[in-house]
Amino acid sequence: MKPRFITFEGSEGCGKTTQISLLADWFKQRGQTVTCLREPGATPLGEAVRHLLKHDPAGHGMAAESELLLFTASRAELVRKVIQPALTAGRWIICDRFHDSTTVYQSIARGLDRLTVSVINDFALGGTVPTLTLFLDLPAAESRARMLRRPRPVGQTDRMENEPPEFYEKVTNGYRQLADSEPSRIKRIDADGDKRTVFEKILSEVKNAFHGQLD
Amino acid sequence: MKPRFITFEGSEGCGKTTQISLLADWFKQRGQTVTCLREPGATPLGEAVRHLLKHDPAGHGMAAESELLLFTASRAELVRKVIQPALTAGRWIICDRFHDSTTVYQSIARGLDRLTVSVINDFALGGTVPTLTLFLDLPAAESRARMLRRPRPVGQTDRMENEPPEFYEKVTNGYRQLADSEPSRIKRIDADGDKRTVFEKILSEVKNAFHGQLD
Repeated sequence: MKPRFITFEGSEGCGKTTQISLLADWFKQRGQTVTCLREPGATPLGEAVRHLLKHDPAGHGMAAESELLLFTASRAELVRKVIQPALTAGRWIICDRFHDSTTVYQSIARGLDRLTVSVINDFALGGTVPTLTLFLDLPAAESRARMLRRPRPVGQTDRMENEPPEFYEKVTNGYRQLADSEPSRIKRIDADGDKRTVFEKILSEVKNAFHGQLD
Repeated sequence: MKPRFITFEGSEGCGKTTQISLLADWFKQRGQTVTCLREPGATPLGEAVRHLLKHDPAGHGMAAESELLLFTASRAELVRKVIQPALTAGRWIICDRFHDSTTVYQSIARGLDRLTVSVINDFALGGTVPTLTLFLDLPAAESRARMLRRPRPVGQTDRMENEPPEFYEKVTNGYRQLADSEPSRIKRIDADGDKRTVFEKILSEVKNAFHGQLD
């Protein structure tokens, strides 16, 4: 039996949250137990690291290397404390971003050495790799436009807001390059359509990947 | 000019704190500017990580992989925000434990893959390696005995207290093996003597390593 482990990847505004919610509901309607996770976080250690990465002034201006090591520390814990036990128990795991985000954002987009990032990613995963990764592919310009339209509390900014258009191009192209290099695991989904159309494509990939395991 | 960067390594109870204090005083008496650092910590991010590693209940029972990534996250930040700028400015840095501790404790003693630990260590260092490492070598039995004699607040335990004698043997032998593999950087100092005798040996190694740079 393939591990019941699905990850969602893609640039900002690509619709991951909506699609994960639709897919989780679909599993639940079929009587399956599904756990939705978000990185970084989902363990006491991961939540503390999330706070440090996102809100704690102690994290402001941290080096790219420190950031990568914190993300992977949170992931190493998540894999060993939550994902591996759940998969062993036969439960479904859907994770909003996982190791591919590290490859695309930290290595391809920000320029950290690809081979080193790959070694650190593998170390954190300890062999626990998603069976299916759904890459919601949105043109870079559309991703940036959706990001800038997002409602947020007055005065609160998001680090991504400050990234130039080229950064969005690098992320989108990075995901495409990654999907081409691992076509059996990573499925590219055209995300520039209405949510039901996108969801039907996702469902088709899920049924293909887990053929015979969905009952 | 060689980077004015000295690290102290060794098992628990080997006398690092005392010797670092003596060496820092010696530098100050010669009119030198010296910064003493302790890992993990010494940056806002590092202090937050230190709290997570040592005191925060969120860190209890963390995976060995998460622990390694947190230690190296703190080190990556320390190197880039404190050590590199200080060395560039010509200041002396003395650090209580550094990357060799990760190699010895996490890899040799706890069994994490040596090559992977080496890649992650190098990533965190970004080429900033100590010019001189003083390994205070104490027999494992003596290290454990000193550790168990240490005064501490009632009810407070230290993770090292719970380690079996074999763990202390692994640490001591690990440091000796590492010192043999890098004899030009790592100097083995017999630490089983009175503090003035040990300090004279240390001073001799410092003078050798930084010949012509001490004025």
